[in-house]
Amino acid sequence: MLFDGVFAIAMTLLVLELKVPEIEDRHSSRALLLALRQQGGTFFSYLLSFAILGVFWWRHNHTYHHFRTITARMLALHFVQLAAAAFFPFTAALYGHYPANTAGILFYLGTVAAYLWASFGNLVVAKQDGALTDELTPDAYAKMRRRTLRGASVMSAWFVLYSVLALAR
Amino acid sequence: MLFDGVFAIAMTLLVLELKVPEIEDRHSSRALLLALRQQGGTFFSYLLSFAILGVFWWRHNHTYHHFRTITARMLALHFVQLAAAAFFPFTAALYGHYPANTAGILFYLGTVAAYLWASFGNLVVAKQDGALTDELTPDAYAKMRRRTLRGASVMSAWFVLYSVLALAR
Amino acid sequence: MLFDGVFAIAMTLLVLELKVPEIEDRHSSRALLLALRQQGGTFFSYLLSFAILGVFWWRHNHTYHHFRTITARMLALHFVQLAAAAFFPFTAALYGHYPANTAGILFYLGTVAAYLWASFGNLVVAKQDGALTDELTPDAYAKMRRRTLRGASVMSAWFVLYSVLALAR
Amino acid sequence: MLFDGVFAIAMTLLVLELKVPEIEDRHSSRALLLALRQQGGTFFSYLLSFAILGVFWWRHNHTYHHFRTITARMLALHFVQLAAAAFFPFTAALYGHYPANTAGILFYLGTVAAYLWASFGNLVVAKQDGALTDELTPDAYAKMRRRTLRGASVMSAWFVLYSVLALAR
Repeated sequence: MLFDGVFAIAMTLLVLELKVPEIEDRHSSRALLLALRQQGGTFFSYLLSFAILGVFWWRHNHTYHHFRTITARMLALHFVQLAAAAFFPFTAALYGHYPANTAGILFYLGTVAAYLWASFGNLVVAKQDGALTDELTPDAYAKMRRRTLRGASVMSAWFVLYSVLALAR
Repeated sequence: MLFDGVFAIAMTLLVLELKVPEIEDRHSSRALLLALRQQGGTFFSYLLSFAILGVFWWRHNHTYHHFRTITARMLALHFVQLAAAAFFPFTAALYGHYPANTAGILFYLGTVAAYLWASFGNLVVAKQDGALTDELTPDAYAKMRRRTLRGASVMSAWFVLYSVLALAR
Repeated sequence: MLFDGVFAIAMTLLVLELKVPEIEDRHSSRALLLALRQQGGTFFSYLLSFAILGVFWWRHNHTYHHFRTITARMLALHFVQLAAAAFFPFTAALYGHYPANTAGILFYLGTVAAYLWASFGNLVVAKQDGALTDELTPDAYAKMRRRTLRGASVMSAWFVLYSVLALAR
Repeated sequence: MLFDGVFAIAMTLLVLELKVPEIEDRHSSRALLLALRQQGGTFFSYLLSFAILGVFWWRHNHTYHHFRTITARMLALHFVQLAAAAFFPFTAALYGHYPANTAGILFYLGTVAAYLWASFGNLVVAKQDGALTDELTPDAYAKMRRRTLRGASVMSAWFVLYSVLALAR
C-alpha cells in the first residue's frame, strides 16, 4: 500500500531534522547535553509530529475499511492527504527550529488543516459516490463525519488566528 | 512490492529539498515568510512532482492488473521506470532551485520522458511476450498504448525544444 | 504494515550518517582510507544499530503472531516502540560521532530502554486486555515476559550508571 | 516484508548523493550543465548501483521462493545481506565522488562481495538445515549455488587485486 509506505517514511524522516551538534571538548557530556538542549524544540516537534501522523494513520486505517472502492475524486483527495503527510518532515523541522515564530506555527497548522479537510472531503465524496460499505451505519458515518469536521474546523480557526498574529507583527 | 515502496519513498523524499532557512530575528514571522518565499520554486516543484508520481503510480497500478506474468524484458523495463521515479527527488530539486534555467527543465522533462517510454515499452513487450490477461480487450489495450505513446511523444518534443534552447543560449 | 515500513526505513537511514570525506589528493587511496578511519565510530555504530533493530524487528514479528487483536492501549505502546525505532538514526549518529562521550551513550541506552519497556508493556497489557491467542501457553508467555523484562532492566541499569557518570564529570 | 522495504529504500536513497550545484549565473544552462558534469561519476554510480541492487533483489526473490522456512542461521545471514544492501547509498556515493580512487573502489567491491557471500552462505545453510522446498531439483540447486559462488569469487578476486593496488600506492 502506497498510503502505509508514505506514512512510515514521513514518520521516520522526521528524525533527520535532529542534527548531531559539533562541540569542542568531545569528551564532555555536559557540553553535549547543553548543545542538544538547544534542539529542544526539534525534539518536542519530533514527538508531537510522530504522534499526530500516528493518529492520522490509525484513523485512516479505520475509515479505509468502510470504503468499498476508491473513485477518481476520492483518489485525488487521497493524494492531497498523502502530500500533506509527506510534507510533515519539513513543517515539523520548521516549527522545531522556530517554536516561537508565528509563521512556523502557521505552516504547521496549515499542513494539519489541509490533511483534515482532505480527510473530511473523502468522507463526503465517498457517500456521494456510493463508495461506503453497508456495514457503516448512518449513525457511525455521521459521527466520523462530525469528528473530522470538528478537527478540521478547530485547526482552521487556529490557522486564521495565527495568520492575524503574523500580519500584526 | 518493490514498485510501491520505491514510489512511496521517492514521493516522500521530495520534501527533503525544502530547507529550513536561517533568519537573524528568530521571532519575526515576516522574515521567515520572506525567506520561505525564496523557495517558492521548490514548493511548486514539490507539488508538481508529487502529483506526477501519484499519477504514474496510479496508472501503473491499473496497467499492472493486466499483466499475467513479468518476463525478463519486462523486468528490465520496470527497473528503468523505477530508476526514473527514484531520480525524481534530484530532478525536482534541480528544477525547484533553478526554475528559469533551461538545463534544469531539460533534466525534468528527460526523466518524465524516460519513465513514459519505458512504460510504453512495457506495454509493447508485454503483448509480444503474451503476458497480457485475456480480460484486456484489444480496444482497451490500443487505448492504453496510444495514451502512453502520446504522453511520451509530447514530453520528448518538449525535451527536444528545450535542448535547442539550451544550446542556443 | 506500518511497523515493517518504519523498521526498514530506520535501518536504511542509519547509513546517511556516514559522510563521503573531502580529501585533497583525490587519487590517494591512503588519504581516503585515513579520512574514513576517522568515521570508525560511526561504522561500528551502523553495524551495532542495524543488528539491534534487526533483533527487535524479529522479536516483534514473533510476538505479533500471538496477538489476536490490537487494543487502544496496545496501539499507543506500539507507537512508543515505533518512535524509539525511528529515533535510532539520530541516536546512532550521536553515539558514532562521540563514542567516548557519556551523554551520547546515555541517549543510545535510553532509546533502547524505551523500546524495551514499551515492548514489555505491550505483553502485560495484551494479557490484561485478553488480546493473546490461545496457542501461547502460559509458560511461553512467562518466558517472553521474563526475557523482555530482563532486557529492559539491564538497559535501564546501564542508563542509570551512565547518568551518574555524566553528572559526575 | 522487511527485505523488499530495505531494498526499495536503499535504491531510492542512492539519489540523495546527487547534489543541486550552486552556480553564479542562475539562468545559464551552460553553467548548470558544466556543474552537473562534474558529478558524472555520481550519475554513473547511481545507475550502476541501482542496476546491481535491482538484480540482487530479483535473484533473492527467485531464491526466496525455494525456502520452506527461515532458520536462525539463515536469518542472521539475511541480516548480513540487508546490511550490505543498506550500505550501498554510502559506498555508491564514495565511488561516485572518487571514481579513480582505489580505496573507494575497494569499498564498493567489498560491499558487493559481502552481499554475495552471505547470499551463497544462505544457500549452503538452507540445504544443511533442510529449509529448501522439494520443487527445487538438485540440478537447479547446484546451478544456483555455482552461479552465486562464481559471483562472490570474482568480486573477491577483484577486491584482493585492488587491495594490493591500494597498498602499492
